[in-house]
Amino acid sequence: MATKVLLTLSYCGTAYCGYQVQPNGVTVQQKLNEAAAALFGYPCDVVGCSRTDSGVHARSFCATIAKKGESVLETGIDVSRIPRAMNAHLPFDISVRTARIVDVDFHARYDVKYKEYEYLIYNGAERDPFLTDRAWHIPVRIGEDALEEMQRAAAHFVGTKDFSAFRATAADTAEDDAVRTVSRAEVVRNGDMISFRVRADGFLYHMVRIMAGTLSAVAAGRIKAADIPAILASKNRRLAGPTAPAYGLYLDQVSYHE
Amino acid sequence: MATKVLLTLSYCGTAYCGYQVQPNGVTVQQKLNEAAAALFGYPCDVVGCSRTDSGVHARSFCATIAKKGESVLETGIDVSRIPRAMNAHLPFDISVRTARIVDVDFHARYDVKYKEYEYLIYNGAERDPFLTDRAWHIPVRIGEDALEEMQRAAAHFVGTKDFSAFRATAADTAEDDAVRTVSRAEVVRNGDMISFRVRADGFLYHMVRIMAGTLSAVAAGRIKAADIPAILASKNRRLAGPTAPAYGLYLDQVSYHE
Repeated sequence: MATKVLLTLSYCGTAYCGYQVQPNGVTVQQKLNEAAAALFGYPCDVVGCSRTDSGVHARSFCATIAKKGESVLETGIDVSRIPRAMNAHLPFDISVRTARIVDVDFHARYDVKYKEYEYLIYNGAERDPFLTDRAWHIPVRIGEDALEEMQRAAAHFVGTKDFSAFRATAADTAEDDAVRTVSRAEVVRNGDMISFRVRADGFLYHMVRIMAGTLSAVAAGRIKAADIPAILASKNRRLAGPTAPAYGLYLDQVSYHE
Repeated sequence: MATKVLLTLSYCGTAYCGYQVQPNGVTVQQKLNEAAAALFGYPCDVVGCSRTDSGVHARSFCATIAKKGESVLETGIDVSRIPRAMNAHLPFDISVRTARIVDVDFHARYDVKYKEYEYLIYNGAERDPFLTDRAWHIPVRIGEDALEEMQRAAAHFVGTKDFSAFRATAADTAEDDAVRTVSRAEVVRNGDMISFRVRADGFLYHMVRIMAGTLSAVAAGRIKAADIPAILASKNRRLAGPTAPAYGLYLDQVSYHE
């Protein structure tokens, strides 16, 4: 039967040079392509919803599988059996959670309505061995006033704005249009963990990590929440804060136009 | 100043051959001894509250540091600075969280009032890459009736009883007295995670893992909750369930007579 299959998957990004296949280094997409080829018996193209950086994690990444060079799979395997069958060919740090049939013209990246990321800051005084490579450790205590300032800063990210100041300037990733619509940007404390969640119709290169780094500068008092509109208006990357480490970042949710 | 220092520490046990120093394989105690020697400038003995197995984790392990062959440390370092100073000499999967001064005759193992362990069962249909080596994956859904049967089974562990049926029979670990007092034994579901918590004045070799394995057999319907008293009375290891894997087990809390 000819079908196009959409997977949701989770991966721990620590061991990978990001999602997308590249010449040097093992990537998540490469492992998925290999697993799909082993399962279906012919070369496959797994197309992901996003190109996560090296070390970035995903709780709910979406990707389609099709025969290489075509838009569908030919398979007798029931779609409900695909997650377990794929997992038998994948390393333990990648897991296919669900699979369903989608339209042949569905595109895992271009049909995204919004994506939501979570950035985790661990604010305990001493490191937590269970959070190595899973949260950014900021050992200096972030007090209630500083947390509220972070919350006010995050609120300035919401809206349809030019996010040039929150985009890495690597030449190979420059896109002309830096306008994105952020529909959610929230900072919440839960015990020693501070979570920054941001939802948008699209993200620029390093956008969430620069936002998280900027929030860390707000927590430290080096940037004020009230400065954020001017930083956005400047379109100047150097006025925003540092790029937070990749390992605190999780792709958490992907929603599609359907 | 001559002091005896009690540390609380966390470690992810995946990379270690258990807590206690042994001739073959790297252990947590060895790493602590090395870090203490590097920090204080002379050989040290770190004495732990328990001998966890290879792969077992600890969220709050207690251990004292003293100069090798003596019962105290000689140091000018303020006790509040010891956690960070020790962590600078420890790998990322071990972290000293707190340090405080205790009596010279305090013993990290013999003065334990109770210890509490948590055993984690991940009951999602497909594996979770963030729980590799951190929870036992049982993919077959444990329904509400089965969960309640596990809860009834766990309740039979509470009390002062002979736990010979829940002790590994390795010759080198045999102790004459298998009577222990369990003051808490609870099974709770939280989303896809099932947590078994057990608190006792002491534990036999593999006791929590055999209890957790027995609860898995209860979930699968192979052992009934009402069978537990007879299994205890038999003192026969073969009547209890399998030994659950080490990597689902966490030492969670240690309390001392003081």
